[in-house]
Amino acid sequence: MSHILIKNGYVITMDGPPIRDGIVLIEDNNITYVGKETQQAEHVIDAKGCVVMPGLVNAHNHAGMTLFRGYADDLPLKEWLEGHIWPAEAKLTGEDVYYGTLLACLEMIRSGTTAFADMYFFMDHAARAVEESGLRASLSHGMIELFNEEKGDADLREGIRFARKWNNTADGRITTMYGPHAPNTCSREFLSRVKDRAKADSLGIHIHVLETKAELLEMKKKYSMCSIHLLDEIGFLGPGELAAHCVWLSSGDMDILAERGVNIVHCPVSNMKLASGIAPVPGLLTRGANVALGTDGCASNNSLDMFGEMKTAALLHKVNSTDPTVLPAHQVLKMATVNGAKALKIPAGQLKPGMLADIIIVDMQKPHLLPNHDLESHLVYAARGSDVRTTIVDGKILMEDGIIMSMNQENVMEQAAISAEKLIQRVKEQSN
Amino acid sequence: MSHILIKNGYVITMDGPPIRDGIVLIEDNNITYVGKETQQAEHVIDAKGCVVMPGLVNAHNHAGMTLFRGYADDLPLKEWLEGHIWPAEAKLTGEDVYYGTLLACLEMIRSGTTAFADMYFFMDHAARAVEESGLRASLSHGMIELFNEEKGDADLREGIRFARKWNNTADGRITTMYGPHAPNTCSREFLSRVKDRAKADSLGIHIHVLETKAELLEMKKKYSMCSIHLLDEIGFLGPGELAAHCVWLSSGDMDILAERGVNIVHCPVSNMKLASGIAPVPGLLTRGANVALGTDGCASNNSLDMFGEMKTAALLHKVNSTDPTVLPAHQVLKMATVNGAKALKIPAGQLKPGMLADIIIVDMQKPHLLPNHDLESHLVYAARGSDVRTTIVDGKILMEDGIIMSMNQENVMEQAAISAEKLIQRVKEQSN
Repeated sequence: MSHILIKNGYVITMDGPPIRDGIVLIEDNNITYVGKETQQAEHVIDAKGCVVMPGLVNAHNHAGMTLFRGYADDLPLKEWLEGHIWPAEAKLTGEDVYYGTLLACLEMIRSGTTAFADMYFFMDHAARAVEESGLRASLSHGMIELFNEEKGDADLREGIRFARKWNNTADGRITTMYGPHAPNTCSREFLSRVKDRAKADSLGIHIHVLETKAELLEMKKKYSMCSIHLLDEIGFLGPGELAAHCVWLSSGDMDILAERGVNIVHCPVSNMKLASGIAPVPGLLTRGANVALGTDGCASNNSLDMFGEMKTAALLHKVNSTDPTVLPAHQVLKMATVNGAKALKIPAGQLKPGMLADIIIVDMQKPHLLPNHDLESHLVYAARGSDVRTTIVDGKILMEDGIIMSMNQENVMEQAAISAEKLIQRVKEQSN
Repeated sequence: MSHILIKNGYVITMDGPPIRDGIVLIEDNNITYVGKETQQAEHVIDAKGCVVMPGLVNAHNHAGMTLFRGYADDLPLKEWLEGHIWPAEAKLTGEDVYYGTLLACLEMIRSGTTAFADMYFFMDHAARAVEESGLRASLSHGMIELFNEEKGDADLREGIRFARKWNNTADGRITTMYGPHAPNTCSREFLSRVKDRAKADSLGIHIHVLETKAELLEMKKKYSMCSIHLLDEIGFLGPGELAAHCVWLSSGDMDILAERGVNIVHCPVSNMKLASGIAPVPGLLTRGANVALGTDGCASNNSLDMFGEMKTAALLHKVNSTDPTVLPAHQVLKMATVNGAKALKIPAGQLKPGMLADIIIVDMQKPHLLPNHDLESHLVYAARGSDVRTTIVDGKILMEDGIIMSMNQENVMEQAAISAEKLIQRVKEQSN
């Protein structure tokens, strides 16, 4: 039995007030004690000068797209997608997704993310990368039916095969969901089929909803109602659903999402970078909806650093609502931990006995994090992913004092760079 | 004569296309060569895998306020200022400003800022800190007349004394400006006096303009015109002026600022955090105005990391104008280098012979900065201040490979923390 004791840290439990000079005890993959009493363990981590907190949950990602970081920026959406991202994705191989996902996992471990939700292609390769990295993830095969029944059938078959093969694997670190792309790229019938399948298999659904105004207009034209009303009409919406973006919501849409217990993933950086719009997060929170945070893929962010995502979320809604009290630091931390874990159905996001041992240690003894008036404020407004010193997932230390333990960092960086180079070469050959 | 040679880097000159495996030669405090030809020097820095670029210019700061980082956040503006910041500032000592400014300089050196514009109190202490740190700065004593002639006289006397004492000191690294606080906190007469003084002394003016809607409304009520028109009427506006914020501008205001050659400092994070509003930066840039970037003080950001400021600027204006092509990466880099240097009247911001040797080296061989499709994009959208490896100001290496050379980092951190603690103690005693 593996015991890890973390001592002397400022423990932000997200389940009550912080504990100064606190103790966190890990046995196997669980937290068994959080408090002030002396404990024993074979491995002791001294967290003096550090915050000890739940690992961050990145609730919407396309990890394989890390290979596209910086590949196409500052472009009109249509040109970005049709002229750059889609042609590159058409040349993508399983090996690319494997190395892209490994690189993403490396970046996430280094910046304090312990679990993420992912939707992409070549998902066996992505799952293998997650398994090796030591991270926790909820994975789904992205299904873009495009109103083509045959494509829909094939996508769903692959979605089902992948979901069944990988659910509850890697000691339970990998779970699966179904991943229909969006209400404007999948037919109503296809979405219904996916929902039935998910219900039968007791799996959740990861979907993009109302990311762009274009989707809203398309849906209204086609169905005389918006995506939320359509999804609700077919009984799609419930606590099993992970709805990314949710930018273009009416007040009534927000009511529905909150009532149905849908998990909403706010992706402020991606929504700003692609100029998609500003999701009405304060309104969703007021209604008691569960709002998590996600970076989206690296092509539209271009970072997987959840600390940056937290700061941007806090800032964006203050200025957008002309109210500096909106999304205070603690609430943003909750979105990135408690709410994210809830959205992914993981017993984590808080430090208390019985929770999974997904924990990060953040070094606060740095010039940009002094003085220490309020460490929760620092985590949201001043810290960066690079301040994370130690990352523990499922009771295993993936990074200790900045050293990656679960992967060969140099090799991953080298292989990912080579994959990206070859991929772009293939794209260029195609267009010549 | 001190010679430094930087080789093997990806040189972003901001004066033409980047140079792969480029050479930058520094002699004394100047750049004497940028190109591909072999050069000799006693000190050689190998920048393989790194970007070599002009140091970032933080064009609006209150460095002493670093002691207030995390002291009061997420509050209504009035409560933040009157209930927290002002009572704390009332207890501030010269020693506090010295250590706060040292801590700020440490953070700036570590995150690649080589020059900054500052306006605060106890400026002799701030100047001493800048002198010791090795950074370059344009300093001004903040004058808040508050329509009290006596206070105005005293403030202006102190402003003049400080400006004359410190201008062109520390081997020219320190220059000075006059610092009237804002058009709604200083009378028209006082602003005129300051302008006359600045003209006579050939010094610039650092001022806050139209940061809040409240200022706009106050000005309209009092003068039947906005701050820009008032300042223009008294002949205040010109290329010597550094106007921070400029959030609440009309189209006509933008025309005036551009025509007069005023330097505008955009502070997106502060404006978002305090919910002040969104400055019309694309409109200013279209008019050819010189727009630099600033973090503002640490109480309203809460970071001095200009990489964060660049990313936020790029994101904010994309979403605000619903146009993802607005403020592309190169333009944002220009704001943080070329435009900032121009605003501070420093021959820097570009790497070319004759420019001051204010240079940073950014390590791009990190998981979150791969693959290397576009390094300018990475600098804006993916890099963090912590990726800066080496910072050179005025030809002197202030940080090399992450090690601070010009200051005792541990001592600064310790003394700043103690100062902050004592300051808060004094504030608490006062309120009891």
